[in-house]
Amino acid sequence: MRLRNITNAREMLELHPELIILEPRQHRGGWANFFGNSHPIYLEIGMGKGKFICEMSHSFPEVNFIGLEKYDSVALRALQRLIASPRPNVKLIRGEAENLLEYFSSSELNRIYLNFSDPWPRKGNAKRRLTHCDFLDKYRNILVNDGEIHLKTDNKTLFEFTLQHLNEYGMKFDHINLDLHAQEPEDNVRTEYEVSKSATGAIIYQMICKF
Amino acid sequence: MRLRNITNAREMLELHPELIILEPRQHRGGWANFFGNSHPIYLEIGMGKGKFICEMSHSFPEVNFIGLEKYDSVALRALQRLIASPRPNVKLIRGEAENLLEYFSSSELNRIYLNFSDPWPRKGNAKRRLTHCDFLDKYRNILVNDGEIHLKTDNKTLFEFTLQHLNEYGMKFDHINLDLHAQEPEDNVRTEYEVSKSATGAIIYQMICKF
Repeated sequence: MRLRNITNAREMLELHPELIILEPRQHRGGWANFFGNSHPIYLEIGMGKGKFICEMSHSFPEVNFIGLEKYDSVALRALQRLIASPRPNVKLIRGEAENLLEYFSSSELNRIYLNFSDPWPRKGNAKRRLTHCDFLDKYRNILVNDGEIHLKTDNKTLFEFTLQHLNEYGMKFDHINLDLHAQEPEDNVRTEYEVSKSATGAIIYQMICKF
Repeated sequence: MRLRNITNAREMLELHPELIILEPRQHRGGWANFFGNSHPIYLEIGMGKGKFICEMSHSFPEVNFIGLEKYDSVALRALQRLIASPRPNVKLIRGEAENLLEYFSSSELNRIYLNFSDPWPRKGNAKRRLTHCDFLDKYRNILVNDGEIHLKTDNKTLFEFTLQHLNEYGMKFDHINLDLHAQEPEDNVRTEYEVSKSATGAIIYQMICKF
C-alpha cells in the first residue's frame, strides 16, 4: 500500500518509540522482553493502515502482534490508530521484509500474516513477491516449527503463483479457500483493502500453510 | 454425468466391440497392440458424452485416446458420436475408475484427464472423489514417470480438496488456473458440461500436475 507522502512523517514516527520501532535490529532475539511476557508473537508483513492488526489484538489479548510496514506515510496511519486506541499487545515496525532475518532471531515468531501483498505482476519482479522462495527461506528461519503462514489476496495470479511455489517448496497446505467471502467465517477480520475490494465483487482467496 | 436410462443401452453397446470395450481386463498390458501402434495413450476418466475426447483425438492424431464411462446410457451417447465421426485413435471403455488397475498395467498410460468429475460434496463420500489418495495410488501406478494429470472443474470445494490432497500426496503442480475462461487458451477443448456451466458465468478451475 502506498499513500500520498506526508511531510514530516518520519519525525512524527520518531515521537513514539514505545509504539513504533524504527531500529528493529536492536530487538532481534529480545521481542518477548520488549513485550514483557512470553505470549506467542504474530507478525503481519505489510500492515497497511493497521485495521487488521488492531482488531486482531483486541480479539486475542494473549497474543503479541507486530505490524511491519515499509512506507513512513502508511505506518503513520497505523500509529495514529494505535495512539487513538492503545493496546499493550501491539508494536509496529517501520522496516523491510527483505531484512526479516536482521529483525528476528530463529524461531522467534509463531505466525506470519500476508494480507493482500503487492502482486508484483511483471514476471521480472517475481522475486519481490512475498511468497517467492527467497522469502520462504526467511519465514522458515524466524518461525517456530509448525508456525503457520496465513495469506489472503484478491489477486488471482499471485494466488496461483503462491499455490505453485509453496507446493514446490514442500510446504503443507492446512486450509485453502477459493472464495472466502462466499461464506465468510465469523472470525475473519477484514483489512481496509479487503473491505473496499469485496464491495466491488472481487473474489478473496485465502490459505493457511506451514513448513 | 447421469442421463435418463436408455432401454437396451447395453445391447446397443455390445454391437460395437471394435469401438467400446465392455471387458477391458482382457486388454490389460495390451492397449498398444489394440491400437496397433506405440503412440502415447491418454485416458479421460468420466468422458460423458464424448465431446472432449473426440475433439482432442482430432487435434492430436498421434495420440491414442481412451474414454472411460461407468453409465451405459452415457457411454452410448459417446459411442453414437464416434460412429458418426469415426477416428482410429479413440476407444471407449464401459467401466469403473475403481478398477483401473485391472484395466491397465503399470506405466501403460501417458496422461489422465479428469474433467468435471463428480464432486461428491458430502464429507462421508470424500473417498469417492477422483482426487482422493486411493485413486492417486492407482494413477501413479498406471501412469508413466512424469505422466501428467490434467484436471478441470467448476466445483470450488472439489478444487480446494484437490489442491490440498495432491499437495499432501507430494504431487508437483505444473500449472494452476483459477479462472480458465477469463483468458481462455486457444487450445482449451470444452466438454459439454463446461459449455453449459460457462454460459451461466461459473468459474472454471484447472490444474496440471504430476507425481
